[in-house]
Amino acid sequence: MKCKSCECSFQEFITDTCKQCDEDHKAKVAFLTATQPASFSDVVLFASDDEAAGPVPAHKAVLVSRSPVFRAMFENEMEESLSGTIKIGEVSYRTLGAFVNFLYTAEVCLDQQLAYDLFVMAEKYQVQRLKDYCQKFLVSNLNWDNSLLTYTLAHRHNAKQIIDAALTVITDNMDKLTSRKEYTKLKEKDPQLVFEIYEAFLSRHSSFSFVRMARTEPKKNIMGPFIF
Amino acid sequence: MKCKSCECSFQEFITDTCKQCDEDHKAKVAFLTATQPASFSDVVLFASDDEAAGPVPAHKAVLVSRSPVFRAMFENEMEESLSGTIKIGEVSYRTLGAFVNFLYTAEVCLDQQLAYDLFVMAEKYQVQRLKDYCQKFLVSNLNWDNSLLTYTLAHRHNAKQIIDAALTVITDNMDKLTSRKEYTKLKEKDPQLVFEIYEAFLSRHSSFSFVRMARTEPKKNIMGPFIF
Repeated sequence: MKCKSCECSFQEFITDTCKQCDEDHKAKVAFLTATQPASFSDVVLFASDDEAAGPVPAHKAVLVSRSPVFRAMFENEMEESLSGTIKIGEVSYRTLGAFVNFLYTAEVCLDQQLAYDLFVMAEKYQVQRLKDYCQKFLVSNLNWDNSLLTYTLAHRHNAKQIIDAALTVITDNMDKLTSRKEYTKLKEKDPQLVFEIYEAFLSRHSSFSFVRMARTEPKKNIMGPFIF
Repeated sequence: MKCKSCECSFQEFITDTCKQCDEDHKAKVAFLTATQPASFSDVVLFASDDEAAGPVPAHKAVLVSRSPVFRAMFENEMEESLSGTIKIGEVSYRTLGAFVNFLYTAEVCLDQQLAYDLFVMAEKYQVQRLKDYCQKFLVSNLNWDNSLLTYTLAHRHNAKQIIDAALTVITDNMDKLTSRKEYTKLKEKDPQLVFEIYEAFLSRHSSFSFVRMARTEPKKNIMGPFIF
């Protein structure tokens, strides 16, 4: 049987929701996501890196209800609140549009770049649901090609779960590490991160060795005499 | 097993949604219902029957996205749109508050009176989901005591499903009908509705008689000679 929402084959038939409540939740989402950001908007956002692309309209009420950072900005009547124009730094028009759209619909269609950018934006504006969503995407789409970039980004934002997942992929491919361009750059830019990779590898390696030693070497009397 | 949302005992274990999508739908509802009607509102509604009770704040963007009637009102820049004040006729403050709250949350806690009033308001403003919700409540809470009132209300709004359900309850209790005050009033006010009750009863009764006749009487030659 296939799930009508994500088209996966069912992993679990038993949920803690009856069929009627399940239908009800879906209908509620459809009802609640009807609000259009452009309709009677009272604030516009600009991507400051991409200002020529035009404004992204929105509503203060929606922004403050989804983000504590916007709440502080508007409720304290900061300049942005009074002018009705907010410049968002270090973000593309595409990312800003996707970010605002997520605040209205709880939906976004991610690719790797958008997931990186939205993860950063979600952290900045404390939109936990979007941050979790991007984190999940980044972890489940980790591979050898994107692992070093993802690892670096995750470190910049202390995303422990992504760091751990990326380290697993990297240390699975240690024989290819030194040939990567990103590795050379990382050594120059942030040697601490390279040390962490090696230490993670050593830690895994020593566990293996320990297991192997325990299997192959005869038992020693660890309570033997100490000689000074 | 109990449903975590409505606490019913599960009727069906198999839904067409996997466990992860089910959790996702619930989380989306929680995320999307965070908007507060009073936060940075750009319009206020008054219950014209109950104006002293004060305004109900809202946002044009939410009203137009949930109701085609509000959409027409605001997009055509009618007086209400320009002034930012809407007077809603023939409605109590309590009903208006519940109506606006439903537009933001898709939730309402109904009792019989509120279900009647919101059903009427949902029809007037074409909020289909609220209308369906009230209709479901009214049908499932039908009993002999409220059946005549519900029947009359349903007729005023051509709610076929409620009319049929109410007629079933009424015609199940025909022996008590004439002693009801509402019956006497209905005869004076809208005799057509009383005729419909009797005709529905006769229609049920004649089917019973026909069944009884078919069981007890000997078969007749229906192709016998016609005598003029």
